[in-house]
Amino acid sequence: MSLLVVGSVAIDSVEAPGGRADDVVGGAALYFSLAASFFTPVRMVGVVGADFPRPVLDDLRRRGVDLTGLEEQSGRTFRWSGRYHEDVNVRDTLHLDLGVFADFRPTLPESYRDSRYVFLANIDPLLQASVLEQLRAPEVVGCDTMNHWIAESRPALERLLERVHLLVINDEEARLLSRERNIVRSAARILEMGPRAVLIKRGEYGIIQFAGQSVFAVPAFPLEEVTDPTGAGDCFAGGFMGELARSGDASPAGLRRAIVYGSVMGSFVVEDFGPRRLLQLTREDIDRRYRQFVALTQIG
Amino acid sequence: MSLLVVGSVAIDSVEAPGGRADDVVGGAALYFSLAASFFTPVRMVGVVGADFPRPVLDDLRRRGVDLTGLEEQSGRTFRWSGRYHEDVNVRDTLHLDLGVFADFRPTLPESYRDSRYVFLANIDPLLQASVLEQLRAPEVVGCDTMNHWIAESRPALERLLERVHLLVINDEEARLLSRERNIVRSAARILEMGPRAVLIKRGEYGIIQFAGQSVFAVPAFPLEEVTDPTGAGDCFAGGFMGELARSGDASPAGLRRAIVYGSVMGSFVVEDFGPRRLLQLTREDIDRRYRQFVALTQIG
Repeated sequence: MSLLVVGSVAIDSVEAPGGRADDVVGGAALYFSLAASFFTPVRMVGVVGADFPRPVLDDLRRRGVDLTGLEEQSGRTFRWSGRYHEDVNVRDTLHLDLGVFADFRPTLPESYRDSRYVFLANIDPLLQASVLEQLRAPEVVGCDTMNHWIAESRPALERLLERVHLLVINDEEARLLSRERNIVRSAARILEMGPRAVLIKRGEYGIIQFAGQSVFAVPAFPLEEVTDPTGAGDCFAGGFMGELARSGDASPAGLRRAIVYGSVMGSFVVEDFGPRRLLQLTREDIDRRYRQFVALTQIG
Repeated sequence: MSLLVVGSVAIDSVEAPGGRADDVVGGAALYFSLAASFFTPVRMVGVVGADFPRPVLDDLRRRGVDLTGLEEQSGRTFRWSGRYHEDVNVRDTLHLDLGVFADFRPTLPESYRDSRYVFLANIDPLLQASVLEQLRAPEVVGCDTMNHWIAESRPALERLLERVHLLVINDEEARLLSRERNIVRSAARILEMGPRAVLIKRGEYGIIQFAGQSVFAVPAFPLEEVTDPTGAGDCFAGGFMGELARSGDASPAGLRRAIVYGSVMGSFVVEDFGPRRLLQLTREDIDRRYRQFVALTQIG
């Protein structure tokens, strides 16, 4: 089943515990698409400038990512540069240039409008809502957001959440959105806003999902070294939504398996700068690490 | 199988998110013993002053805790008062009075010297070693420590760790002990020091165990409210060692089950001030929450 993603495509420069890398491709939609492409065909909506390396787009197409919805404009691609602390859960933005992303208004090609699995990566909630309005019959809608929109666009975000099934956010965002510090109460409050499940990303501690009365927690994969944390959350979302779209199984067990596949993808991407590790990955690598996740968490 | 524990017995006053409580009994050996007593007979070594409430000791005896090794002295019991932050992983010590604990030199009654399961709660590593020297044939030795001993008594602690099988510490202590920030490298370094397994407590994120090449992670139980975090780590250790001593099964699977029982006990004690919740607990409550842990972590 095709999976639609809408979000940023970027060129990043990062200083991270593993060193530094300049001008690597990134952005939520790119990381998401690469991760999801191991599971299902992907349709991407985003915008790049004239400086974006075209071979990367060719590679995405070879991987089954439909780029009909990717606008190519004459300006500069969204650029971000940042520095991670030794504690990789903390990062500083050194420089930000929205470029052509500043005026991004997602427009879905006709061929995308039948998409039933959808992921709205972190952009203005009004734009996220506009994507839903262009879809004929979205069935499973996942969504990310960030502190900025929670603080500055709460009414629009709350309206959007009524139409979202799966919210994927980090713990700080969950607290801000729910105005509750305790994670259980925070999740309960968020579920009242609309989503059927909320997946809370806890960095090196993994993911905890609240869905109705069911709670599922999976640790992050213990790695000897995190080279570059950029994209971990987006690859989680890509693996998670990709596996859901592939299996069509949104039962509690299906959601749990998808969460583990998401965790697998998030654990790989941080092993090298930018999306490099994903580009070398095989399906066999993914399934081996899935089994390692089972071994990591299996009681008795 | 009887389980020996050596450590502090205290009278605590705490300010916590759930309110405040003055003069509640506590201390690592007391929390450990209460938790472990649901699984196996316990032998306690410690010291209390004339101010320690005797009915608490009578209750411990009724629960199968042998207090032959508990010295009752004429001075004041070890007293601690502290304040937890809204983030309950952070606490300030407001007042500390070692009382009779200042000169504590653990002396094992003859009837304790055949103990095969032993837990050395957080005290001076020289005293922890002196306990091992008084035992005829300890088989499974667990140990806790704290920042102070790692910083101030490293040589004694490193000698002790050569004789310890299971080290139970928190993540900050693991980093300090190993001089490694990354948890995987930190655990590898600690295993080189002697223990067969290191169990790292991560507060609200649960426990991660490294044993040889095997890694096992279990989340903390998601609670709507943490009333008083005091004793969570000691109750974890009590449930863990108690179940190990009961089952006699230190296989990888046996260790994992014991870790979950430890997590169960840690999750209960924080639901009320001091050890109150443990005093109301039934074996049925414990087994119900064990099953909830399985449901919380089971993939697919």
